[in-house]
Amino acid sequence: MTFLTFPEKNLRSFTERVFLKMGCSDGDARLAADVLLRSDLRGIDSHGVARLSGYVRLWQKERINPTPDIKIVHETATTATVDGDRGLGLVVAPYAMKIAIEKAHTYGSGWVAVKNSNHFGIAGYHALMAVEQDMIGISMTNASPLVAPTYASERLLGTNPMCYAFPAGAFPPVVVDMATAAAANGKLEIAQRADQSIPEGWVQDKDGKTSTSPNQLKEGGSLLPLGSDKDHGSHKGYGLSATVDILSAVLSGANYGPWVPPFVAFLEPSSDPVGEGIGHFFGAMRVDGFRPAQEFKDHLDNWITRFKNAKTIDPEKQVIIPGEPEYIFEGERKKNGIPLIDAVVNDLNELAKKLGIEPLA
Amino acid sequence: MTFLTFPEKNLRSFTERVFLKMGCSDGDARLAADVLLRSDLRGIDSHGVARLSGYVRLWQKERINPTPDIKIVHETATTATVDGDRGLGLVVAPYAMKIAIEKAHTYGSGWVAVKNSNHFGIAGYHALMAVEQDMIGISMTNASPLVAPTYASERLLGTNPMCYAFPAGAFPPVVVDMATAAAANGKLEIAQRADQSIPEGWVQDKDGKTSTSPNQLKEGGSLLPLGSDKDHGSHKGYGLSATVDILSAVLSGANYGPWVPPFVAFLEPSSDPVGEGIGHFFGAMRVDGFRPAQEFKDHLDNWITRFKNAKTIDPEKQVIIPGEPEYIFEGERKKNGIPLIDAVVNDLNELAKKLGIEPLA
Repeated sequence: MTFLTFPEKNLRSFTERVFLKMGCSDGDARLAADVLLRSDLRGIDSHGVARLSGYVRLWQKERINPTPDIKIVHETATTATVDGDRGLGLVVAPYAMKIAIEKAHTYGSGWVAVKNSNHFGIAGYHALMAVEQDMIGISMTNASPLVAPTYASERLLGTNPMCYAFPAGAFPPVVVDMATAAAANGKLEIAQRADQSIPEGWVQDKDGKTSTSPNQLKEGGSLLPLGSDKDHGSHKGYGLSATVDILSAVLSGANYGPWVPPFVAFLEPSSDPVGEGIGHFFGAMRVDGFRPAQEFKDHLDNWITRFKNAKTIDPEKQVIIPGEPEYIFEGERKKNGIPLIDAVVNDLNELAKKLGIEPLA
Repeated sequence: MTFLTFPEKNLRSFTERVFLKMGCSDGDARLAADVLLRSDLRGIDSHGVARLSGYVRLWQKERINPTPDIKIVHETATTATVDGDRGLGLVVAPYAMKIAIEKAHTYGSGWVAVKNSNHFGIAGYHALMAVEQDMIGISMTNASPLVAPTYASERLLGTNPMCYAFPAGAFPPVVVDMATAAAANGKLEIAQRADQSIPEGWVQDKDGKTSTSPNQLKEGGSLLPLGSDKDHGSHKGYGLSATVDILSAVLSGANYGPWVPPFVAFLEPSSDPVGEGIGHFFGAMRVDGFRPAQEFKDHLDNWITRFKNAKTIDPEKQVIIPGEPEYIFEGERKKNGIPLIDAVVNDLNELAKKLGIEPLA
């Protein structure tokens, strides 16, 4: 595997060109590129520009609307449902999060469910929008069915991530951003490429037997919920994933469970949908709605300091503060550039050729 | 192990007598008994009347105030912080949840952080208060440190449960009520009594080595977060537990992490507290703040039906809908009574003798 490193700026302008070519407005192209780049900067390579071709293919199939009329369809003082009009989740999600933040400014908290959207990138991006305003940010989304609930031998839930982000004082924000499956699909893809087996507890085969083959998903198998098996609490991972699905889709009017449309263009959405598109859920709460913001931050700093100084099993390893590794990546990659594996670079330059835009440089 | 079965009514009046003897008001005694009884009815025996002696011992040590002046100390339209004045969590938590529900009635949602409280019983009780009003209910609490974060060899977090509850239509509410540890302490106690080993992935010994002995907690070991080890996502269980701790305590001004006071009277609270008592966090959102309530319920019924009819590995087993087993227990035990193991019955009758009240009958 060879890596090529690109300055953030170049990758960003390339990404903007792609979204502009899809017909996005200047503002939307900039925003969508910002969400993807943030993922690459933060070291979450599976959710950044590596997905660009996928978005283009969905657009070509007219499953993504590049000029959506995103709007509120239901509302109270602190709650709202947004119709994403089949837009890029990368654009719809920040729109919805902004509404949550505005409501929180006025009333202390704001909560927005979204239907008729698409893949929204990393959950952390949206939750961090609230953190910048000294708010607690919450974001989640449902996703194409890949995960089997406890006891099931079929895929009924997505890897359905949830994110909670908190503003700290001297330290970077605490960002808990996690798929509710034992291991996300990206880890399987890495094992596939390297032709390696995976630990037991990540997947089961089509009959529900545990398996160490990273190819099971292609053969009718399923990912397992966080907890892996009943003895180790897989019903809890299933319960969390169900929570994300209900808040994101049953509440908003999006598709849920096995009806969630696939992210890949070569699989068709259900011919019998129960809602519109995929769903998200966002929340923002003003920290000073509970106690003075500085007091909260001082105590969160104290929390972080105590956990960083915890006694560890291996003296070489520290307890990791959620969000800190991504924060460190972000500083480093902003300075030194973003490494992409050659397969992704080739894919992006193929895409440039097809779309007739300037290649990556 | 022998079981004795008591009509709900008898157990309830006994429990009320105990709380009255502690000096609780009539209303508080009734409410606290209701929370404990609901736990026994729902089959969560670890959190019901079996804990009654523990509450009494904490009261005797003056760590529980039977006549608390519970009040709001900070507030916006949709957020509040409540000071529980060292009251029973069984009383403080419903008080706080009521505030969340009132705010939700007016503004669409309500969120309440609580400090200076004690053990609040089952999270599901409080979340279900919102469900009765066609709201989504959320409840969580931090707890005495028993869980080691990923890589740590010391206990820094409680089993910190979180609960999300949703009103359905034809079906009982969906209630995701879960500890964020791989296995809760109650399961270890069962294995201890039966002198059985436990699965790997529940606990580690004091040096951080995985162990199958249920006695590790007594020997300086720790419970493990949901996910059990890094490969299987223990950093996610740790992240969830951290989220509960921050929302419940860093936000409210309660003690967090290793400073959370122990639930047992024979262990002293930290001499260097970072806050007051233990913390909870509650939320309520009106379903019709997002879409008409009946529409939501119809779709949730459809969700439930699809999951109940999922293809399963073992044709004898169905996918379990979160909250359904507890709902079935509740119907059955209301009718046939609540079975208690003889050790608990003896403990309660000892307690009656000590307090000079009528024994269980």
